[in-house]
Amino acid sequence: MMDGKSIDSAEIVTIGTEMLLGDLVDTNTAWISQRLAELGVAIYRHTTVGDNPDRMVEALREASSRSTLVITTGGLGPTSDDLTNACLATLTGREMVEYPEAREHVDEMFERFGRTPTENNYKQALFPTGTELIPNPVGTAMGALVEWEGTLFATLPGVPVEMKTMFGETLEPLIRARSDGSIVSKTLHFAGIGESALAEKVQDFLDAADPTVAPLAGQGRVRLRITTRANTEEEAQEKIRPVEREIIARLDDYYFGEDDETLEGAVARLLQARGATLALAESCTGGLLAKRLTDMPGSSAYFTEGLVTYSNEAKERLLGVPHALLLEHGAVSEPVARAMAEGARNASGADYGLSVTGIAGPDGGTEEKPVGLVFVGISDAEDTFAEKLDLTAWARSRDAIRERSTNRAFDLLRLRLEED
Amino acid sequence: MMDGKSIDSAEIVTIGTEMLLGDLVDTNTAWISQRLAELGVAIYRHTTVGDNPDRMVEALREASSRSTLVITTGGLGPTSDDLTNACLATLTGREMVEYPEAREHVDEMFERFGRTPTENNYKQALFPTGTELIPNPVGTAMGALVEWEGTLFATLPGVPVEMKTMFGETLEPLIRARSDGSIVSKTLHFAGIGESALAEKVQDFLDAADPTVAPLAGQGRVRLRITTRANTEEEAQEKIRPVEREIIARLDDYYFGEDDETLEGAVARLLQARGATLALAESCTGGLLAKRLTDMPGSSAYFTEGLVTYSNEAKERLLGVPHALLLEHGAVSEPVARAMAEGARNASGADYGLSVTGIAGPDGGTEEKPVGLVFVGISDAEDTFAEKLDLTAWARSRDAIRERSTNRAFDLLRLRLEED
Repeated sequence: MMDGKSIDSAEIVTIGTEMLLGDLVDTNTAWISQRLAELGVAIYRHTTVGDNPDRMVEALREASSRSTLVITTGGLGPTSDDLTNACLATLTGREMVEYPEAREHVDEMFERFGRTPTENNYKQALFPTGTELIPNPVGTAMGALVEWEGTLFATLPGVPVEMKTMFGETLEPLIRARSDGSIVSKTLHFAGIGESALAEKVQDFLDAADPTVAPLAGQGRVRLRITTRANTEEEAQEKIRPVEREIIARLDDYYFGEDDETLEGAVARLLQARGATLALAESCTGGLLAKRLTDMPGSSAYFTEGLVTYSNEAKERLLGVPHALLLEHGAVSEPVARAMAEGARNASGADYGLSVTGIAGPDGGTEEKPVGLVFVGISDAEDTFAEKLDLTAWARSRDAIRERSTNRAFDLLRLRLEED
Repeated sequence: MMDGKSIDSAEIVTIGTEMLLGDLVDTNTAWISQRLAELGVAIYRHTTVGDNPDRMVEALREASSRSTLVITTGGLGPTSDDLTNACLATLTGREMVEYPEAREHVDEMFERFGRTPTENNYKQALFPTGTELIPNPVGTAMGALVEWEGTLFATLPGVPVEMKTMFGETLEPLIRARSDGSIVSKTLHFAGIGESALAEKVQDFLDAADPTVAPLAGQGRVRLRITTRANTEEEAQEKIRPVEREIIARLDDYYFGEDDETLEGAVARLLQARGATLALAESCTGGLLAKRLTDMPGSSAYFTEGLVTYSNEAKERLLGVPHALLLEHGAVSEPVARAMAEGARNASGADYGLSVTGIAGPDGGTEEKPVGLVFVGISDAEDTFAEKLDLTAWARSRDAIRERSTNRAFDLLRLRLEED
């Protein structure tokens, strides 16, 4: 493992004309930044340049003048546009040479996929002299670790699954080993409370210098990130633990999980712990709840079915919502939300029924029932109830109304599951 | 309208610590870049910096040394962290002064939302001297246009709906007016054909210098962007038209729309033109088809219902898939895909039924039925058929399998609708 000067600051350089032209949204940089923040590394800048060697070399040079770690993504493929490692060689005044280990890796990966490499593919075995290779267990492109003038460069591929694997297996341990002391960070997730209301309850922690506690909010959820540094990881954990415990105690009802937890993940965990199943009935969210629940592998263990009942006729036929109820109250109403949740549960035999009905806009709103009016219904063996959501402040964004409705629906079910 | 030197190159500077730390993924930059590429403006670099005045000023200075247009997003809010316009004043050696027009705008927007501004909010009325204001019809933060040393700076808010509105209403006409001649760009969308197979059929156009034709591929779709420049927009359109016509003629079956069209949008358009309705039956996509169809406003006109049947029992009960068929062939099979599509159509009375069943992984694959095996079924009054998709190459990514299955399902339905 490379053993140079300590790492305290980082920049991320994204390489690729398709990013520069906006044909792809760069999600790698945010992911890496979150990891670096958790590792306590200060991030100074993100830069994106196209597949232009002069501009790439310039961007790498500038980044290294500011930061002790420069991570690149992209430009490691086998085509003539893929120039990241060659630009690193140019910047550092090194030769590009073939690494036998990397050539073997190309052969092995091609064999695994049952294909034959062409001469082009062995371009991925060329690296600057003095490179330490970053293994890539899931793709042909290995990465480079190159130390130059007090900066460590790490080149990673742009394919997210490859980048993430290589970051986790090689870069993260390296950064930990080269940080001054151990940095530990923990994220706590809350829902059902606004950012300022939450901040009021934990203002003393937000004002404290160590551990630091930073709030982050979005789409009806709030996160608090607790970070500290100590000589050992165990010491750092010990500093975090009482802060974490006290924050959760003050915000108990709103707390739903730590680190990578999501609302649907919390719901899944609680359902599995109870051996319970869930059926969904969606109107304005149009499948978004089902989609998010099934984004998670293994969801068939607790998710039986989701009914996207867009028409009133479908609400009657599939969920048994009484025709008279729809006539009297309209599809977007508390009684219909209740009937939908109950209908989903009864029809499927699931333990829980969860429903959403509302007006996501931009059209379809009236004075009485404006865009942003949403009802969430929950039904279980003991009770059926509904909650009215006022999302009229987001009337300009159909997406925001659908996202926030989905978050609130999962959160209400989570609270119900925690009671049971 | 500002009337300085012509605009031919641009950079985008994203401002905000939450972006730098990866707590938010920056989608604004990709959106602006696409618009700039369509306007024929070369993009040199994207930069992201945190809410740190020194680093912001430095990033703005560097960008202006390379490009004739620098667009910033973020940092226009009312809090002490929002420093974009102040940094622009520092860089250009100007004072921050209150613009009465901007103060009135703050008052008006607060009145519209039924709230009362505090003194803080009037920070959004401060701009560098010599600023031309960018109107913001949907939020309190107006933007600044500032000309300095041959570079035009435009500051836009980070809220996507505000940024997009302001870019479209003010910046885009300004860029057009200050470009040399008129640049017109058109994007054609194709599905059901790989990038290299498509490139072979139109290689002569890809090699041509004017209009330029550039391919872009992703998740089972390919786009071709045709761009040209002329003295007037009409002239540019006339240069694009024959190229567009010939490309579509060669790739007729694969072509599904232009510019902002999506596969689900093409399906929606065809359904509406026929006055027809659609019902969905999803297994491995778990609601993703329904979600994408209902992302579009007005989908209730042609979408009646979506059944996310994750369990076999739900496939039998809701879709009438025969128990024996599931036993004999398994849920992931051609006969079951057909039965699901037919069942969705029959149960709902919709004109078309569309189904997806497959193994999205990471678990659940066998030698005979590996992760990535997917079937799409289509049923209408005349016929019911299914297609087998081999997505085993994406076995490592549940998301890719679900996205590609969804794209292929919508494309098959599109082809069927075009025949009818």
